[in-house]
Amino acid sequence: MLILGVDPGLERIGYGLVRREGSRLTAMRYGLIETPRINLPDRLRLIYEQLGLLMQETNPDAMATERLMFAANRTTAMDVSKALGVVLLAGSQRGLPCVEYTPPEVKLAVVGTGSADKKQVQFMVAKLLGLPEVPKPDDVADALAIAICHAFRSRIPV
Amino acid sequence: MLILGVDPGLERIGYGLVRREGSRLTAMRYGLIETPRINLPDRLRLIYEQLGLLMQETNPDAMATERLMFAANRTTAMDVSKALGVVLLAGSQRGLPCVEYTPPEVKLAVVGTGSADKKQVQFMVAKLLGLPEVPKPDDVADALAIAICHAFRSRIPV
Repeated sequence: MLILGVDPGLERIGYGLVRREGSRLTAMRYGLIETPRINLPDRLRLIYEQLGLLMQETNPDAMATERLMFAANRTTAMDVSKALGVVLLAGSQRGLPCVEYTPPEVKLAVVGTGSADKKQVQFMVAKLLGLPEVPKPDDVADALAIAICHAFRSRIPV
Repeated sequence: MLILGVDPGLERIGYGLVRREGSRLTAMRYGLIETPRINLPDRLRLIYEQLGLLMQETNPDAMATERLMFAANRTTAMDVSKALGVVLLAGSQRGLPCVEYTPPEVKLAVVGTGSADKKQVQFMVAKLLGLPEVPKPDDVADALAIAICHAFRSRIPV
């Protein structure tokens, strides 16, 4: 099973493809989709196109993203939600199950506690995927953490 | 110039197509796109598909939508933003200029004051478009108001 984890954003979208075979997890590919400072609809189009190409090349079986929970900047939250909308659309169009996880759900799955800090999550991402070091930048490590969360959660019948 | 006004939502998306010829405004078509209570990614896909069909049939020159400003329900705001994301994507893919207006901007353009109430806006929508009665439901009247706002605002060089 190949899981595409996506850390949504407007400027930078982290992605991470994790293969699960039995209990073994492998990072197949990970990186960033970045958009220039152009108008918002065209940024959304770039995200949609790049993500579409990525899915075409890698053919994932499922998509997992972050369920946004914002307090601080409401305008940013709205714009990131717009980006998340086109991410979910791209998944739906390929017939992929798309699941959103909250940050505490991701932390709980990856570290074992919903209140883990960023460093702990990143350490466990590298460890669980057998990577020699923590993937950079944070958006990429987050995307891999989301994919790992789905790998664990989707094994358990709900 | 044919303007597609869109009142974004997840359950119901109002749309209104307004033609501007000189100072004359005409409502060419208006209505609702509704989605059933299925999972969110598939709802987004339905919105995207229906809006795509509408644009294919009507070939608008510009798109105008509401810039979301929420206070009350943050989860709803996030989900409506996701829907707005796919609306803006659909516009960008057809090469349409897409402009977002805040509710006070729409009220100011349609009624002459940013603090106008819903009834005043609806009355002026019917009046400006020469409609015998106020278009129902509210989502449709709002979409037409957004299109009228763009019709007025886009005449003024910024």
